[in-house]
Amino acid sequence: MAVHLDLRFDRPHEECGIFGVFEHPEAANMAYLGLYALQHRGQECAGIATSDGQKMYFEKNRGYVADVFNEEILEKLKGDAAIGHVRYSTAGDTRRVNAQPFLIESHRGKIAVVHNGNLINAHHIRKNLNREGSIFISTSDTEVILHLIARSKQKTVEDAIIDALVQVRGAYSLVFLTDDKMIAVRDPRGFRPLSLGRLNNAWIVSSETCAFDLIYGDFVRDIAPGEMLIIEKGKAPLSLQPFPEKPPAFCIFEHIYFSRPDSIVFGKDVSEMRDRLGRKLAQEAPVDADYVVPIPDSGIFAALGYADEANIPFNLGLIRNHYVGRTFIEPEMSIRHFGVKVKLNAIRSIIEGKRIILIDDSIVRGVTSKKIVDMVRSAGAREVHMRITSPPYCDSCFYGIDTPIKEDLIASSKNVEEICRFLGADSLGYLTLKGMLGALGKESWCVACFTGKYPVDFQRDELAQLRLFEKNGAVAVGVVSLNG
Amino acid sequence: MAVHLDLRFDRPHEECGIFGVFEHPEAANMAYLGLYALQHRGQECAGIATSDGQKMYFEKNRGYVADVFNEEILEKLKGDAAIGHVRYSTAGDTRRVNAQPFLIESHRGKIAVVHNGNLINAHHIRKNLNREGSIFISTSDTEVILHLIARSKQKTVEDAIIDALVQVRGAYSLVFLTDDKMIAVRDPRGFRPLSLGRLNNAWIVSSETCAFDLIYGDFVRDIAPGEMLIIEKGKAPLSLQPFPEKPPAFCIFEHIYFSRPDSIVFGKDVSEMRDRLGRKLAQEAPVDADYVVPIPDSGIFAALGYADEANIPFNLGLIRNHYVGRTFIEPEMSIRHFGVKVKLNAIRSIIEGKRIILIDDSIVRGVTSKKIVDMVRSAGAREVHMRITSPPYCDSCFYGIDTPIKEDLIASSKNVEEICRFLGADSLGYLTLKGMLGALGKESWCVACFTGKYPVDFQRDELAQLRLFEKNGAVAVGVVSLNG
Amino acid sequence: MAVHLDLRFDRPHEECGIFGVFEHPEAANMAYLGLYALQHRGQECAGIATSDGQKMYFEKNRGYVADVFNEEILEKLKGDAAIGHVRYSTAGDTRRVNAQPFLIESHRGKIAVVHNGNLINAHHIRKNLNREGSIFISTSDTEVILHLIARSKQKTVEDAIIDALVQVRGAYSLVFLTDDKMIAVRDPRGFRPLSLGRLNNAWIVSSETCAFDLIYGDFVRDIAPGEMLIIEKGKAPLSLQPFPEKPPAFCIFEHIYFSRPDSIVFGKDVSEMRDRLGRKLAQEAPVDADYVVPIPDSGIFAALGYADEANIPFNLGLIRNHYVGRTFIEPEMSIRHFGVKVKLNAIRSIIEGKRIILIDDSIVRGVTSKKIVDMVRSAGAREVHMRITSPPYCDSCFYGIDTPIKEDLIASSKNVEEICRFLGADSLGYLTLKGMLGALGKESWCVACFTGKYPVDFQRDELAQLRLFEKNGAVAVGVVSLNG
Amino acid sequence: MAVHLDLRFDRPHEECGIFGVFEHPEAANMAYLGLYALQHRGQECAGIATSDGQKMYFEKNRGYVADVFNEEILEKLKGDAAIGHVRYSTAGDTRRVNAQPFLIESHRGKIAVVHNGNLINAHHIRKNLNREGSIFISTSDTEVILHLIARSKQKTVEDAIIDALVQVRGAYSLVFLTDDKMIAVRDPRGFRPLSLGRLNNAWIVSSETCAFDLIYGDFVRDIAPGEMLIIEKGKAPLSLQPFPEKPPAFCIFEHIYFSRPDSIVFGKDVSEMRDRLGRKLAQEAPVDADYVVPIPDSGIFAALGYADEANIPFNLGLIRNHYVGRTFIEPEMSIRHFGVKVKLNAIRSIIEGKRIILIDDSIVRGVTSKKIVDMVRSAGAREVHMRITSPPYCDSCFYGIDTPIKEDLIASSKNVEEICRFLGADSLGYLTLKGMLGALGKESWCVACFTGKYPVDFQRDELAQLRLFEKNGAVAVGVVSLNG
Repeated sequence: MAVHLDLRFDRPHEECGIFGVFEHPEAANMAYLGLYALQHRGQECAGIATSDGQKMYFEKNRGYVADVFNEEILEKLKGDAAIGHVRYSTAGDTRRVNAQPFLIESHRGKIAVVHNGNLINAHHIRKNLNREGSIFISTSDTEVILHLIARSKQKTVEDAIIDALVQVRGAYSLVFLTDDKMIAVRDPRGFRPLSLGRLNNAWIVSSETCAFDLIYGDFVRDIAPGEMLIIEKGKAPLSLQPFPEKPPAFCIFEHIYFSRPDSIVFGKDVSEMRDRLGRKLAQEAPVDADYVVPIPDSGIFAALGYADEANIPFNLGLIRNHYVGRTFIEPEMSIRHFGVKVKLNAIRSIIEGKRIILIDDSIVRGVTSKKIVDMVRSAGAREVHMRITSPPYCDSCFYGIDTPIKEDLIASSKNVEEICRFLGADSLGYLTLKGMLGALGKESWCVACFTGKYPVDFQRDELAQLRLFEKNGAVAVGVVSLNG
Repeated sequence: MAVHLDLRFDRPHEECGIFGVFEHPEAANMAYLGLYALQHRGQECAGIATSDGQKMYFEKNRGYVADVFNEEILEKLKGDAAIGHVRYSTAGDTRRVNAQPFLIESHRGKIAVVHNGNLINAHHIRKNLNREGSIFISTSDTEVILHLIARSKQKTVEDAIIDALVQVRGAYSLVFLTDDKMIAVRDPRGFRPLSLGRLNNAWIVSSETCAFDLIYGDFVRDIAPGEMLIIEKGKAPLSLQPFPEKPPAFCIFEHIYFSRPDSIVFGKDVSEMRDRLGRKLAQEAPVDADYVVPIPDSGIFAALGYADEANIPFNLGLIRNHYVGRTFIEPEMSIRHFGVKVKLNAIRSIIEGKRIILIDDSIVRGVTSKKIVDMVRSAGAREVHMRITSPPYCDSCFYGIDTPIKEDLIASSKNVEEICRFLGADSLGYLTLKGMLGALGKESWCVACFTGKYPVDFQRDELAQLRLFEKNGAVAVGVVSLNG
Repeated sequence: MAVHLDLRFDRPHEECGIFGVFEHPEAANMAYLGLYALQHRGQECAGIATSDGQKMYFEKNRGYVADVFNEEILEKLKGDAAIGHVRYSTAGDTRRVNAQPFLIESHRGKIAVVHNGNLINAHHIRKNLNREGSIFISTSDTEVILHLIARSKQKTVEDAIIDALVQVRGAYSLVFLTDDKMIAVRDPRGFRPLSLGRLNNAWIVSSETCAFDLIYGDFVRDIAPGEMLIIEKGKAPLSLQPFPEKPPAFCIFEHIYFSRPDSIVFGKDVSEMRDRLGRKLAQEAPVDADYVVPIPDSGIFAALGYADEANIPFNLGLIRNHYVGRTFIEPEMSIRHFGVKVKLNAIRSIIEGKRIILIDDSIVRGVTSKKIVDMVRSAGAREVHMRITSPPYCDSCFYGIDTPIKEDLIASSKNVEEICRFLGADSLGYLTLKGMLGALGKESWCVACFTGKYPVDFQRDELAQLRLFEKNGAVAVGVVSLNG
Repeated sequence: MAVHLDLRFDRPHEECGIFGVFEHPEAANMAYLGLYALQHRGQECAGIATSDGQKMYFEKNRGYVADVFNEEILEKLKGDAAIGHVRYSTAGDTRRVNAQPFLIESHRGKIAVVHNGNLINAHHIRKNLNREGSIFISTSDTEVILHLIARSKQKTVEDAIIDALVQVRGAYSLVFLTDDKMIAVRDPRGFRPLSLGRLNNAWIVSSETCAFDLIYGDFVRDIAPGEMLIIEKGKAPLSLQPFPEKPPAFCIFEHIYFSRPDSIVFGKDVSEMRDRLGRKLAQEAPVDADYVVPIPDSGIFAALGYADEANIPFNLGLIRNHYVGRTFIEPEMSIRHFGVKVKLNAIRSIIEGKRIILIDDSIVRGVTSKKIVDMVRSAGAREVHMRITSPPYCDSCFYGIDTPIKEDLIASSKNVEEICRFLGADSLGYLTLKGMLGALGKESWCVACFTGKYPVDFQRDELAQLRLFEKNGAVAVGVVSLNG
């Protein structure tokens, strides 16, 4: 295909899942299954790189994990170490060139990397590197890290990685693969999750523990914020803390919406946290009704908790079509315009004549929620009460959750009453910030999307600049385009 | 791809969904959406044929509806009438040549057809036609109907269709498209569903009513068993009853498992029927426990009914991975062998230390159920009680539900106690035939898969012969292979 | 791709090459190489079918032989017998469904066939078969033969083939492959060539002997007009003459243009025949000049003969671009419109200031010849004399050479002087019919394209009807379209 | 496809053709046709980049020009300026990532480049750049130039290009495209050709003038060795001579073999030069015979010259199969092993019983020549005399002609008599160096492949090192592989 060379710097939004396995005879197969379990974290691209100690092999492409890989391809991914990546990116930037893993072959040997999170100063560093003559291939902020490693004067790969990472700010859970090591790193605030597991004699790392379950692996512990874990053959993993300590800032949205309910994330069971959010919501925003109905699938456990706490029957009045992805991260606008109908259907025999409490995790733009309220009304509901298991979502995320620009978030410009009117619901109740934190525990969460207080200190004008990129898209510099 | 010419006659198993729309300005788009809603009825092939009154256009291919069609293709499918098909076939026969619609251009004009169901005497007719020099292209039994139409001496298309259908026995819901008509037919016993709907001024037909919901159409009524409905422009549909009347035999499995819960099938809400099956099961096979846990997704409504009737909390202890199809109809054996893990995961925090009642719709081979019991035990369940919302499944279906051969059905050779031991469950309870029929109502159901009593009178040795085909696969005759 | 169902009966024009090999351990590889050598006879589709005595395997697709097949595909084409086909078809009908071999699986076992030539009564037979209920898949006239075989009451395959062939009229060189035999047939007049060869212990047949050379095989003899050769394992080929004898009618155009110069066709060396045509032309149409320049590649040997006879230096003033096919059989109209420039370039340093004799095999529409004369003048030629090694081409071929309709042949409406003026040449000379036959020998040639006297007795109005099809294209009946 | 990351530095061998057009409304179409005419210079990859003054568009892929591009793709290549590239590379390195044009987007704007030739110090520079942190994407030496431009401190693109080129040594004909300029450069010795042409108001540049002919453009003059031509809108091209002057070294092999006979290269008609080589050869190495037979296609004009000079009839006893590429640059080893038969066939009726003089341009490994001698003998030749239109080829080319390593060149280890014996010829005659230069004129040619005297002064051990790379392949450093 002819390709128009429009290489804009990525809006700092990427939802991803990462996985690594070291010293396992079927490394590529394990990575494939691990990514499969993490598919909900990114559905546009998938990739695996493996090493047999001497050579590296890789495959990455657009599409679901099950589409990108097949037996023949997996057989070619030789070696007993593998890292993998699934990726969702914003509409319009689904180029294969941005798919991960990235690989470089430097004078320090081969290095492959997968990344979950987003750097907030990538654009600035990139500009400087360009001026010094570095040529970029992708628009991904992950490539900035590779260039910093390549330019580092440090002698070992580990030191070069540290050298590079002290220059970047933002969210990163990373897994590197070299000829003889796997290195897992989490940024000092630990925005995004990363867990360590054990599979027989192999070490495994994953964004979520559900990937361990699938391959019958055991969850060992979380990689700690700011920890660098160096895994070599025949040795216990070496744990370093190379960065200055910072207060942690775990992404609370992983529990509210993003992670799978069967995962343990930041040390907590996701399904249980959602149950608790539902119960707390029942206390904070009660309403009399005939059924508590979740908006599937993210609202299910919260709805079970709400129903039990409120002593109102739970029922599945909305059915998901399983052949579409999640509303939130589906870039096919044409289908989204058709409405939520392709994804959800209301069951008239359950809803007709009833007072319904709808449980959802969040309201982003409000458009989808409005359509669901409409649908439930069309199916004959007497009353529709919307209950949200988090506070009003009013600020963009710059750390790895894809969100619209602030101006497009309905809660950034409307209060609860106005939103309720917009949705056409009989009532609307959000969980309070205090209630949410009470339900989830006192850990240091990143709640910037609810408060606008970003835990990484932005330098002068940087936040404003990022918001501007959001809106306009900045032209990237120094990008070489060798492929369509 | 080089193709090995192994054209075996289809095992008489095809699960399908069919859809038709007549006199709608966006016929192809409506068919696309209709098939989308019917995707659960067949995930291997999808096809649409349209007519603009003079020419016909078609596209069919292997893959999901969303993969086979895109905007560009839909634009080429011109005209205001369309019929469509989704198809699942048994492993090893997923050739594109068997995808529907089928089209012929005869001296009576163009005729396209889609078919849900299976003919039990197709092989016999085919052999005769071969001997007389007919050349077949596919291994589908639907092609037999087309050859009978082509050879009919009747003058009109309608009469030729009737001429053909009186020669076949078995299950068929059919939609034909000609240059100026859409003709919907259901076999005299009405094995498979077929509903009529209205979308503004257009007439629509569909295997299930959920397809009407998606496009904001209205359900009018079921096409009756043995009814032929001829739809022409500017006229009310003409209803004929061209076949001798027979006692109806509605496939009870549509309600137990196959149909979507938000559909109305054979005049009844599927979700409500499943709720009733669950309640009756709670009465017939009670057991004390901490949680009622459905095997998603088919067991959910039955589990809600069971839980409410038994007054035991409902919980979602098993989570589905939405990036795979349903266990029952997924032909990728390599993944099935890996286990149910790629499709289901147990949530330890819910299950650990608890007594669990698992609700499922049926046990086929028993292998999957056994793995689920294992998985729930591994997640720490103290007790696992399996409850099934239908009687023991002990006979193959020859009318359009894909089932293994009788020998592979666990209930054909083991009693309930033996099955329970095989599964490793603490107890196992099936719904009785009487209980099932009590829950669903007194209609004339086909319950052959539970009783072995097949409602179409087989001719001498025919059933034995079909069973033999099941086992060995018979070599087809008279097939021309023009394409790989 | 969405496909518009416009299944018009083929214009009776197909240029093809066919090949067969029997009892060779590498049958598919030999067929591949054989087709490779016959590539000039058809560049749009290629196909091979093989048999291992029990199963048949086949691959066919659009494209060059080297594109359609690769090692992996050839490995899957198992067995020690193979037949193959290369095909050129008229613009607009390049559908894969018409590619050969065709295969049927009948009550007589599997039969595959490849065909070179065209039947003149295919349309008529097809119509009758349609009326009796036969369903056609392709628009190829070859399929008619298969339907006649399928409907034959004869017991053996050989007799059924004879039964079918006595019903058809026209040109056919055919190779059939069954589970245990290879059968080669040539129509009673022998329009198209077919040769028998020997490769170690294997028997080989080919449209041209150049295919034998490539695989180090030996030319044995031509299959005779009207001969049917039945080749079985461990036996000498059995020769039958099942048809009433007719005077032969060898296509003279094979020698003038179509065959490769290194082949022996109808018992004569092609390069030598062309040399003789050139010499005769020098006698019949002399002119003084500086250089004799062939229009490559078909004119080269005639130009060498002309130059030697006329004692005028031969030179290569026109250079072919080897990355395009031959002008005559290239269906890409957009490139043809651009001109002959993409295929030929004149060398100024040779042509400038010189009197040039251009040697070509024929003038069809005259457009290409005119462009070549222009090009040679633009390169500075002082005089351009066109000499043609055959008489004026004034009638369409219905026996397997792709030609325009009569109305588009420049010689059907213009005399030599008018054509010369149209070309803008200083003089134009054709070989006379008598001169041509004198050069090639007294065999019974088909010279219908020069005389309009067609050697197969057409039935009443049949020729007029065929000419009408030529012009308008007749709508096919009874075609089933199972594939795009 | 899974890709094994084996990124070895290119053996310094690439045959290429380059083309550029500036200020033409159909720039992409002209580039397409230009590349089409240059297809013989490289048949593995083709690419075009265009600019509309603001954006750049590109497409490149493996395959022939006609396969890589189609109407749809050409339409997307907008703008009135275009550069293009065809490329042949050594077996095993046909990755798409090495296809040209290369594009970078730097702080100086967008720059695209195409390159014909090879740098001899690329490896050394690359190593240094790696050490300083540059990351390479391809294994092409052309990318080195882009990195040097990116790192240059010069302000304008022109100065940065000069800055980069003064650091490299070797052969380069380059065309750069920026947002508003086209810049053509030829290395100081002018190893590879590059010509300037005019097409209405547009400027065009091309490796060979045959590309001008195809699009009806006019040849203006050669770009001079060491000249940089800057072409801007509405201005006369600006000619610079930014490099220290060096004695020219035109690749003599362009005339002997590589260029098309209808091109003017280094100011001389290729067909005429070959005629002269043939005549000189007839004087230096006469032999009595019946026919002079060229090895097509490169030997044809020399054979015509030889035949005329020697007064022995010219004949075409060897026929080429036009569906394969040239022996010399065809990387499909499996076919080459099969022999020359797939490419050539001997015509027995011409050769049998005759004394044949075979005319070829060169003998490289000797294997192909030996097979041709065998083939001619098998066709019945009484005597076979081989005559070569150049001296013994005994040294590798490092400037852009693909040659085997020195050890594989038969003339590097055998004298003429030994070679003759190896070939099995009755006699073998080479043209002398003096005779060759006498025939072609006194210009300063690069004749390193005949003498081992390389015109670029190699630094200490550099030649030995390059020869070593030849043999072993050196591992590249600093390569990032973002794509398979």
